[in-house]
Amino acid sequence: MNRRNFIKKISILGLGTALLPNITFSNSLYSPSGLKIKVGLIGVGLRGRSSLNLLLNRNDVIIHSICDIDQNAIHESKKLFKKHKKKTPKVFKENEYSYRELLKQKKIDAVIISTPWKWHFKMAIDAMNERKYVGMEVGGALNIKECWDLVNTHEETGAHLFILENVCYRRDVLAVLNMVRKNLFGELIHLECGYQHDLRFVKFNDGKTVYAPGAEFGEKGLSEAKWRTQHSIDRNGDLYPTHGFGPVSQMLNINYGNQCDYLTSTATKSRGLHEYIVKQGGQNHPNANIEFKLGDVVTTVIKTINGETITLQHDTNLPRPYSLGFKVQGTRGIWMDINDSIFIEGETSSHNWEPDTKYMKEYDHYLWKKYGHLAEGAGHGGMDWFIINDFVEAVKNNNPAPLDVYDCATMSVITPLTENSIKEGGRPQKFPDFTKGKWKNRKSIFAIK
Amino acid sequence: MNRRNFIKKISILGLGTALLPNITFSNSLYSPSGLKIKVGLIGVGLRGRSSLNLLLNRNDVIIHSICDIDQNAIHESKKLFKKHKKKTPKVFKENEYSYRELLKQKKIDAVIISTPWKWHFKMAIDAMNERKYVGMEVGGALNIKECWDLVNTHEETGAHLFILENVCYRRDVLAVLNMVRKNLFGELIHLECGYQHDLRFVKFNDGKTVYAPGAEFGEKGLSEAKWRTQHSIDRNGDLYPTHGFGPVSQMLNINYGNQCDYLTSTATKSRGLHEYIVKQGGQNHPNANIEFKLGDVVTTVIKTINGETITLQHDTNLPRPYSLGFKVQGTRGIWMDINDSIFIEGETSSHNWEPDTKYMKEYDHYLWKKYGHLAEGAGHGGMDWFIINDFVEAVKNNNPAPLDVYDCATMSVITPLTENSIKEGGRPQKFPDFTKGKWKNRKSIFAIK
Repeated sequence: MNRRNFIKKISILGLGTALLPNITFSNSLYSPSGLKIKVGLIGVGLRGRSSLNLLLNRNDVIIHSICDIDQNAIHESKKLFKKHKKKTPKVFKENEYSYRELLKQKKIDAVIISTPWKWHFKMAIDAMNERKYVGMEVGGALNIKECWDLVNTHEETGAHLFILENVCYRRDVLAVLNMVRKNLFGELIHLECGYQHDLRFVKFNDGKTVYAPGAEFGEKGLSEAKWRTQHSIDRNGDLYPTHGFGPVSQMLNINYGNQCDYLTSTATKSRGLHEYIVKQGGQNHPNANIEFKLGDVVTTVIKTINGETITLQHDTNLPRPYSLGFKVQGTRGIWMDINDSIFIEGETSSHNWEPDTKYMKEYDHYLWKKYGHLAEGAGHGGMDWFIINDFVEAVKNNNPAPLDVYDCATMSVITPLTENSIKEGGRPQKFPDFTKGKWKNRKSIFAIK
Repeated sequence: MNRRNFIKKISILGLGTALLPNITFSNSLYSPSGLKIKVGLIGVGLRGRSSLNLLLNRNDVIIHSICDIDQNAIHESKKLFKKHKKKTPKVFKENEYSYRELLKQKKIDAVIISTPWKWHFKMAIDAMNERKYVGMEVGGALNIKECWDLVNTHEETGAHLFILENVCYRRDVLAVLNMVRKNLFGELIHLECGYQHDLRFVKFNDGKTVYAPGAEFGEKGLSEAKWRTQHSIDRNGDLYPTHGFGPVSQMLNINYGNQCDYLTSTATKSRGLHEYIVKQGGQNHPNANIEFKLGDVVTTVIKTINGETITLQHDTNLPRPYSLGFKVQGTRGIWMDINDSIFIEGETSSHNWEPDTKYMKEYDHYLWKKYGHLAEGAGHGGMDWFIINDFVEAVKNNNPAPLDVYDCATMSVITPLTENSIKEGGRPQKFPDFTKGKWKNRKSIFAIK
């Protein structure tokens, strides 16, 4: 049976999607029941093709269509179909709005959006309006309004949105979530996270090879440098909050009995990108005149309704080792990823850190225990496999997304809120309540057996 | 020659202390010239006696007087004089204002104040009014006004104040200051620090033995529990900012070409102290009803005039390993003490941390190279020796303090500013300019050869 026809029937009956979650086509992996969902991919650059590759590996997914305005991306994608011996998809590539043609394909059940940030919300809204199940790649929102538009469209259409925050599925992160849920840390008090990643080689390249040292971006740059760098010129805020905030928000049950109350944000001066341009292209390179608005390090402190704090950092312009800087502190203990250390009162010897190895084994999440072998080799240490799997399973059953439109809005609104706070000299900014009060009774379904 | 008589003569001549810095009695340690300064100690509890012990070790210091209202503290101090075979001092112990009798002793050149926080500023002001050179132990200020009073008294009297921020002399901290001054990190961008110290055993004891587990404080408690704990009941802010901020402010030249502009501060809920009382004394212990105002973790972000940010944390109510959480990040690299790691672009292999051992050796500060052997066994890993030594040398020459009254006001005002920010839901608070513009041209003399 075709999922889309089924949904359509239900809809015609006026039952809406609210009744669907309990109807299960298949709970098992790779659809032994034979159900195949039809997926369209909007954006098949490096990130989109990574998802494409995972989807082509599965026998419960048909890639119906792909869409991109970059002809090389289309070309590379087609090669993947050949490699996997899968049927060539429909291709939409004419212009920036060709994705709307893709969305009109009635057979498509779900889309995955892996485009530049400024298109995410617009495309997701259009897709929900076409009643597609939406998987949306991460990135901060452009403004508060588009977060509301996203939520409202979901509520009007009943179409689901799954924010593809892959770090939520990182093995240590899921193990720590497990520890939190089993109360190992006691009551949570303070959490830290961030995106501390030297992206200079992503924001600039030589215009010939992706990630090759250079001072080019925009029209002369390749891949993300084509569009991502411009955000560092135009905006000062936490431009990429979700990899840090997503996992932490699950631990704190944000939108599920807890809420973000307000944040303050402070940015440093901007030095790193200019210095990198001069280093790569010389003082006379035309890009050496550009003024970057984005502070090299942006520090944000979030206060929750339940009284916890979260420190969130955005640090992408300076030479430094990669880190998401996770720290989880409660009344009984503390864990941090910077040196994989833990302290649990009564278990760890007094006043010392202990390596977290033992705990990581003991609290390894059931998802990793069950599927870890399948995730091997998938992007970002395997975590991409899990999110694509959860996405596909949710689409099959038209289940609500484990990381849903409210989670997405809360994660993404951090960007405009931090921009506003910085603009106003650190003034606190209230979080909108996208759930309109529903957060009090909502129950998380993320990574729950 | 007696220093005090010398100063007096200069003062009578109307030259003031401004002319003094270049007049040197002795630059050498332990006064081979025979000059002895006379010191009075106000407060000889555990902290005061630690300084007393270091002073009694020297042949260029005479401890003229001691003062405390705790008779046991006086008793223990006298034992130290015997142990060191030094002449018994004058003792002032009648009441809380007996220190004023000590200050009236004309022969005393300098005093060290090691009393509960609420007395620090009042005593320092009284001491400067008596033209004593003041060494003041650290702790946050009670309010902004007392910081101004301190500064104004210094300016009116010409008497110096040395804030005894010992962590500024920690071996790794001084080595990193050396790295900063030699531009190893490039232009500084973002620094982190804090006071992350499980003080539950300090805030409470059994009323019989210091640091013994218990649920008593105030009148029934011992040592710091007598007075320190009450601050956690009455106040919500960064109550103890200097150990983190002091070192970092030296690296950023705060008050020496740079200034703190504003801060925002956010506190978590308060759980740790109550849970500790219940654990130690049971649910029915009278102290189990106390509501603590102090959030378990207080996170403060400071923005400087030169565009750097500082993250400062106060975290004293929860089980955790000790850490001051130092991080120093610039355009060329980053260091952190949490795992003694460093990354320097072009030197460290790409995207990895490297142990800082090599750099700590190469940049070991000359003070430690020269005096490290003398500091062995002194409090807090030896750093207390250095600050007492710098204090004594400064007093001998009536030199300005390397960590002076302006540094003291800036460090200490963080406490009331964070209290205000928290009270106002994270609203930014401007730092007062205690130097009244002089920061632009002031040159640091801290730890400079």
